Amino acid sequence: MTSVFSWPVRVYYEDTDAGGIVYYANYLRYFERARTEWLREIGVDQTDMRAEHNAIFVVKATAVEYHASARLDDALRITSVVEKIGRASIVFAQEAWCEERRLASAKVTICCVGVAQWRSIPLPSSVLAKINPNV
Amino acid sequence: MTSVFSWPVRVYYEDTDAGGIVYYANYLRYFERARTEWLREIGVDQTDMRAEHNAIFVVKATAVEYHASARLDDALRITSVVEKIGRASIVFAQEAWCEERRLASAKVTICCVGVAQWRSIPLPSSVLAKINPNV
Amino acid sequence: MTSVFSWPVRVYYEDTDAGGIVYYANYLRYFERARTEWLREIGVDQTDMRAEHNAIFVVKATAVEYHASARLDDALRITSVVEKIGRASIVFAQEAWCEERRLASAKVTICCVGVAQWRSIPLPSSVLAKINPNV
Amino acid sequence: MTSVFSWPVRVYYEDTDAGGIVYYANYLRYFERARTEWLREIGVDQTDMRAEHNAIFVVKATAVEYHASARLDDALRITSVVEKIGRASIVFAQEAWCEERRLASAKVTICCVGVAQWRSIPLPSSVLAKINPNV
Repeated sequence: MTSVFSWPVRVYYEDTDAGGIVYYANYLRYFERARTEWLREIGVDQTDMRAEHNAIFVVKATAVEYHASARLDDALRITSVVEKIGRASIVFAQEAWCEERRLASAKVTICCVGVAQWRSIPLPSSVLAKINPNV
Repeated sequence: MTSVFSWPVRVYYEDTDAGGIVYYANYLRYFERARTEWLREIGVDQTDMRAEHNAIFVVKATAVEYHASARLDDALRITSVVEKIGRASIVFAQEAWCEERRLASAKVTICCVGVAQWRSIPLPSSVLAKINPNV
Repeated sequence: MTSVFSWPVRVYYEDTDAGGIVYYANYLRYFERARTEWLREIGVDQTDMRAEHNAIFVVKATAVEYHASARLDDALRITSVVEKIGRASIVFAQEAWCEERRLASAKVTICCVGVAQWRSIPLPSSVLAKINPNV
Repeated sequence: MTSVFSWPVRVYYEDTDAGGIVYYANYLRYFERARTEWLREIGVDQTDMRAEHNAIFVVKATAVEYHASARLDDALRITSVVEKIGRASIVFAQEAWCEERRLASAKVTICCVGVAQWRSIPLPSSVLAKINPNV
């Protein structure tokens, strides 16, 4: 059973390009906002995680398909589902919607990186407990 | 036989984030700069393409893997290879390098879209002839 | 008597740079979000304005002073006050705050531009009536 | 006698907005690229400055006037002149040009900030000597 987290995003001029639509790379910003707010909701603060564990989340892989375009002033919903939890990584399935139109769908893999050694380290157990309360 | 196009990119503060590294979504900007400059080199000007054919290129899909991080002041090389040419789309294989380190590798699919009807249309034949001189 | 409009903004990785703080140019994005939401609140939709009057708002001048830094996860308030209404332009005084710290203060002049002729035109009277109900 | 430093910038989709022109906040990115490249040319590497002096440049104030618009594919020249050197700050006069059209003009004040204490500190003397060889 999965739970879908949803986060609203409004399209401003800053998000659009001369094609009149949201610049495709900006969906990655939207997806990250939704992941960040989901982490905040379950009690994982990334600033605290860095202070306490000297660890940050780094994106390892993204795969995005673009189905339709968003335009200035559109009110979007960005969804986020945890698809897989690894020792050092989390895979998210994410989508961007405008009313009944699905604009983009993505898989995003983030990895826990130790700032000192700058390589992947296991997710701190306190963080893991919040992400996956049944473990 | 494929030809590799390479474009230099310098990392500025605008490209980095509080992790001290290039923000992952910005590689999509770098990849697009390299595709644009490759198009310019073979004689395809996107402003002209819009004026003459009322057509623009829109990104349909991206898949990026991040292998290593770039930092402020790094001098990157962005490579671009045409992997497949369809009726209305082109698939690129692209990479970002800093000296001998490969930072990111990507597949990017762009699609030719008619601005009036806002859906995919065949690549204009004059554009296709420049992209694939042997057709 | 002036009324202050306030809009919340959260700081994400996308907003920060390798200095660990919000990249200074991004305050201009925050200021624009607040102006846009103020326009929306008083009933001015910029997409409608373009469709009905073939007119858009373009920024003519900005002057920003930076007093303090914002960091990842900070919750900001962006304020906006109309300082002066001209025939074709509006001057805003805007500030960015994090709790009791004032981060930045700005004057931003926007101008109404006709898309066809691409030069400044008088504010549409229906727009002006909403901005300045006493005129 | 002042010397004008000039740096070329090409306009890509990433730089534009739905108005069809370069998004106004992006001129601040262009201005910073030109300042950074000027510093590099006179031998000031900001990554080294941070490593050796634990100091970074932070923007304190910007004032920009927008005169004309740039569009996709435009080839711009960004100019940079040192207008004033203070104990801890430098004021630049900068402009953006496209052929014979002046697009934007700016004053930008940057300040030397100690990363440890996070407040302004005197410019390192080795940096100052490169900026102002006659002092």
